[in-house]
Amino acid sequence: MDTLGFVGGTGAHGRGLALRLAQAGVRCLVGSRDADKARRAEARLRTLDADLDVAGVTNAEACAAADAVFVVVPYRAQAKTLPALAEPIGTKIVVCCVNALAFDDLGPYPLPVTAGSAAEECRGLLPRARVVAAFHNVSAQSLLDPSAPLELDVLVVGDDEDAREDVASLARRIPGVRPVDAGPLRLAAPVEQMTAVLLSVNRRYRTHAGLRLTGLER
Amino acid sequence: MDTLGFVGGTGAHGRGLALRLAQAGVRCLVGSRDADKARRAEARLRTLDADLDVAGVTNAEACAAADAVFVVVPYRAQAKTLPALAEPIGTKIVVCCVNALAFDDLGPYPLPVTAGSAAEECRGLLPRARVVAAFHNVSAQSLLDPSAPLELDVLVVGDDEDAREDVASLARRIPGVRPVDAGPLRLAAPVEQMTAVLLSVNRRYRTHAGLRLTGLER
Repeated sequence: MDTLGFVGGTGAHGRGLALRLAQAGVRCLVGSRDADKARRAEARLRTLDADLDVAGVTNAEACAAADAVFVVVPYRAQAKTLPALAEPIGTKIVVCCVNALAFDDLGPYPLPVTAGSAAEECRGLLPRARVVAAFHNVSAQSLLDPSAPLELDVLVVGDDEDAREDVASLARRIPGVRPVDAGPLRLAAPVEQMTAVLLSVNRRYRTHAGLRLTGLER
Repeated sequence: MDTLGFVGGTGAHGRGLALRLAQAGVRCLVGSRDADKARRAEARLRTLDADLDVAGVTNAEACAAADAVFVVVPYRAQAKTLPALAEPIGTKIVVCCVNALAFDDLGPYPLPVTAGSAAEECRGLLPRARVVAAFHNVSAQSLLDPSAPLELDVLVVGDDEDAREDVASLARRIPGVRPVDAGPLRLAAPVEQMTAVLLSVNRRYRTHAGLRLTGLER
């Protein structure tokens, strides 16, 4: 996977992932509905690292040119955004990083999703794509700070074992990240919703908590 | 909390928690519907450590005599078991450790729960009790091996802050366990369902995976 497209890549989550993956030597196409907004996100990434192989393009261009597509839109935008991209995405690997969550006075909480999880909804919207869910529980702030060492496990779920392995290989290219194969896509809900738990912990402990599993070899 | 009752404490999860908490100096009443079964569980615990302050009793006796009650029944038994215990439990702290999950050819998966989570269902069944959810993501096998050092975070959620703190203090008494206050009970679903993810990882990596958060001070 030499070229990645990021649908909705101008947000902090998308830019953070694009930064780390571009630093690992992957060409990253930061997509947006609005090409100007995408070019501004490209410029912001270059201020962090002038040598990055990144380009701000439309979502459709990002999907057409990429080997695999990251979906990093806010949950509320997913169902509106993806149907128009089904054609350029085709049968490519789609990495759904979407967290269906909201905030109120009590803090973050998971939003109910009819399909079970944002990733299963994504699969319903892109039935030809090989959908994998991963990179949910990563702090965008940590990703966007090139001096911050990462120390986190990325839980990878999906029904296509080869696609899971390809996404795991991609994750492994980021220093400090360990992919963990957690099995089928039906386990996406707890993986996504754990982000609400981590954000709730962050609020209480004033930190950017990450997830690690014990009992696995390093 | 000097005396703990374990509703459905004869299973591996309950015996494992009772072992570790009794080793930490807490009196543990291992409850069952069947007093004989409870006494057999008590005897099994004594073979692991003869000095444990444990007793096998009925669920009702365990609830009546305890300062706080652990619910460690299988999920399918919770709704049948708890209503009859509402009176002896009263306003005590209830630690719901129940994981609503099932297994099929693809492995473990979370069961849908109308109340949102087993812990929220537990609160509905015991409206006077102060329900906290904790101790889900712990391997019973590891708990039951007194020679196995533990290295895990226990996520604690509940709507009563004092009750969360009391349960955190209890968890802290077990060497190698760090409690993490994760906020309100509405976050119980991802905490419970993460057990299915960990079991799925166990199956793939042939291990007993545990959960640790990074970014928190030790």
